[in-house]
Amino acid sequence: MTEQAQRKVYMDYVATTPVLPEVLEAMLPYFRQAFGNPQSLHLWGDEAREAVERARQQVAMLINGAAEEIIFTSSGTEANNLAIKGLAQGQVGKGKHIMVSAIEHFSVLHAVRTLEKAGFEVTVVPVDKYGLVDPDDVVRSLRKDTVLVSVMHANGEVGTIEPIAEIAKKVKEAGVLFHTDAIASTGNIPVDVKELGVDALSLAGNQFYGPKGAAALWVRRGLRLIPLMDGGVQEGGRRPGTENVPAIVGLGKAAELAKNAMSGRSQRLQQLRDRLIKGVLSSIEHVILTGHPEQRLPHHTSFCIQFIEGEAMLMLLSNEGIAASSGSACTSRALKASHVLIAMGIPHEIAQGSLLFSLGLENSDEDIDYVLQKLPPIVARLRQMSPLYARFLKRQRG
Amino acid sequence: MTEQAQRKVYMDYVATTPVLPEVLEAMLPYFRQAFGNPQSLHLWGDEAREAVERARQQVAMLINGAAEEIIFTSSGTEANNLAIKGLAQGQVGKGKHIMVSAIEHFSVLHAVRTLEKAGFEVTVVPVDKYGLVDPDDVVRSLRKDTVLVSVMHANGEVGTIEPIAEIAKKVKEAGVLFHTDAIASTGNIPVDVKELGVDALSLAGNQFYGPKGAAALWVRRGLRLIPLMDGGVQEGGRRPGTENVPAIVGLGKAAELAKNAMSGRSQRLQQLRDRLIKGVLSSIEHVILTGHPEQRLPHHTSFCIQFIEGEAMLMLLSNEGIAASSGSACTSRALKASHVLIAMGIPHEIAQGSLLFSLGLENSDEDIDYVLQKLPPIVARLRQMSPLYARFLKRQRG
Repeated sequence: MTEQAQRKVYMDYVATTPVLPEVLEAMLPYFRQAFGNPQSLHLWGDEAREAVERARQQVAMLINGAAEEIIFTSSGTEANNLAIKGLAQGQVGKGKHIMVSAIEHFSVLHAVRTLEKAGFEVTVVPVDKYGLVDPDDVVRSLRKDTVLVSVMHANGEVGTIEPIAEIAKKVKEAGVLFHTDAIASTGNIPVDVKELGVDALSLAGNQFYGPKGAAALWVRRGLRLIPLMDGGVQEGGRRPGTENVPAIVGLGKAAELAKNAMSGRSQRLQQLRDRLIKGVLSSIEHVILTGHPEQRLPHHTSFCIQFIEGEAMLMLLSNEGIAASSGSACTSRALKASHVLIAMGIPHEIAQGSLLFSLGLENSDEDIDYVLQKLPPIVARLRQMSPLYARFLKRQRG
Repeated sequence: MTEQAQRKVYMDYVATTPVLPEVLEAMLPYFRQAFGNPQSLHLWGDEAREAVERARQQVAMLINGAAEEIIFTSSGTEANNLAIKGLAQGQVGKGKHIMVSAIEHFSVLHAVRTLEKAGFEVTVVPVDKYGLVDPDDVVRSLRKDTVLVSVMHANGEVGTIEPIAEIAKKVKEAGVLFHTDAIASTGNIPVDVKELGVDALSLAGNQFYGPKGAAALWVRRGLRLIPLMDGGVQEGGRRPGTENVPAIVGLGKAAELAKNAMSGRSQRLQQLRDRLIKGVLSSIEHVILTGHPEQRLPHHTSFCIQFIEGEAMLMLLSNEGIAASSGSACTSRALKASHVLIAMGIPHEIAQGSLLFSLGLENSDEDIDYVLQKLPPIVARLRQMSPLYARFLKRQRG
């Protein structure tokens, strides 16, 4: 940054959220006062264990599951790996066929690739131009040896919310386990494991103002799950390692807050979101909204700005104090065209111009104004330097 | 607890340590201000990434490794699993034989059992009555297809420090990779990966006043390591998942503080330790010190108190405000006789009376006095109710 930005506008809440003051406050006693190991048999251990169990209850309530069905993990990625590998390997007697959608997070897509090397077969179900999975496509690909289907609840890159209840119902009718990666959705829209009818569900605290380092896998009671790690007896032996008590407490508090505030939060964010989408589409030419126009996360906007590379836009936006992203945060430094956009049929060239603004509690109407003021000149400036844009103009004139 | 304890004395620092004020202070900005995802391409991401890289440097300096050789994990258990499974599977072309000591932590012992199910062969090297591994035993069990040897640096249950440099030298001479679980030792005694001559080393922040949720595996540059999890590009692709920035920052700060304060800390703790050992041995009959009398962690005392179950002592000590343990915190709620004590040749019956006091920065001479005052009557009271003790007395009189 060469000069001071006028304003700081964070619009990358899908990459991670800040921790709410109440969440941090709930966590603080567990660093220095109630700092015990939950497995210890003394007062310090009791305090820590009670805190973890309270958080388990809070997380369970957010998704309408039972506390004993919650396994705390260190990240959404770990929860997805545990679900995919743990459930698939837990059923090898039954078969070795897995199905996932084409727009899953890499913690699911790469996990099934690893299983493939271990002898599993994988079917990748396509999506339509909005990123939607067709439940009938899933049904058509079910086999006698299918042991697990995983389709995400909402996609963090394009915001599209999948018809999980419908897919899960059909998968369950075939007697196959169903997992959903609900990391982008949980805490932001209602997520109810009973209404969704799933067998396993991943969630992560840092998507709804909880801390990094605490996430969870909900697994329906009685299912066989092979742990990723070996060690002690924590989390019923399904996830060993000293519990990250402060982070788990923070996740629990964030879950409680999200449950209570969800409808108010999302109404407000949806208004900001709609203003931003309308503003971008009307002020910049050659822009497409990616993902479903209505069936999308309330805080999520995503575009492809043609003739420009997303990364260049992020740099110039950052120079103006604006945080946005151009795909999954887990790969954003890897500079590849998003597999999500490609799966939606968006040409590679256009997918390069991916730009996401994801909104959160600290955003205001003024932030939207600021982005709508700063973005068009950045786009214009980058297009002036773009050989692709020059060729396009030439073709148009010619 | 029925009545108020006079004093609160935490002497279970091997189970987990509190976070130092300076460590918490270093962490705090990363929850709500510099809360970005290190993978994001904007100011918030830059700040978070720089903090993680600074911590990587601090941790590397503590063990005299290179920053790029540090892989942050969520716990010591994860670091051990990653080392054992990742290094073994990274060399399957070479062979499938692994060697570990009998007193490893369950995150090592159970990890090799899992590898065994996947076709690996495992040799478990014995220990002597002090818990020491004989380097010659390791050499004798080396095979042409041995791909990995793992012996812990110090044992958390009996405090014994193993002759790692000597073992590693012999293992390396045979061209075999050597990993050490240095979770109990790192930050408490000097740990230098070059002096130890190891290829991989696990450490955990909550053993030296860093936060739970941040640990690390150091792996020598260039070694092939198969990740436990699949997902994004974090930690060079070797450990995906959003980095737990505040915890990593805390681990870094704790590493820096430990490096600077180590000799002062351990001198003081050693004095307290020696007083406590002497006091326990002189005030209670039928007690043995477990582990090596000299070659042991400076903050570590461990005993077997005959004719009593450790768990009962923990309860009564907790009623007096004293936190101790009776084996590994990871299994302490599992109530089994310690595999470590059994491996040292201690009879099952005596191993049941395991009692550990591990000391830390907040302990004082008054704490030692308090424990030495409270423990003997607790032991006497429990022995009065012990059928084993009654039988012993009868035999003695008889």
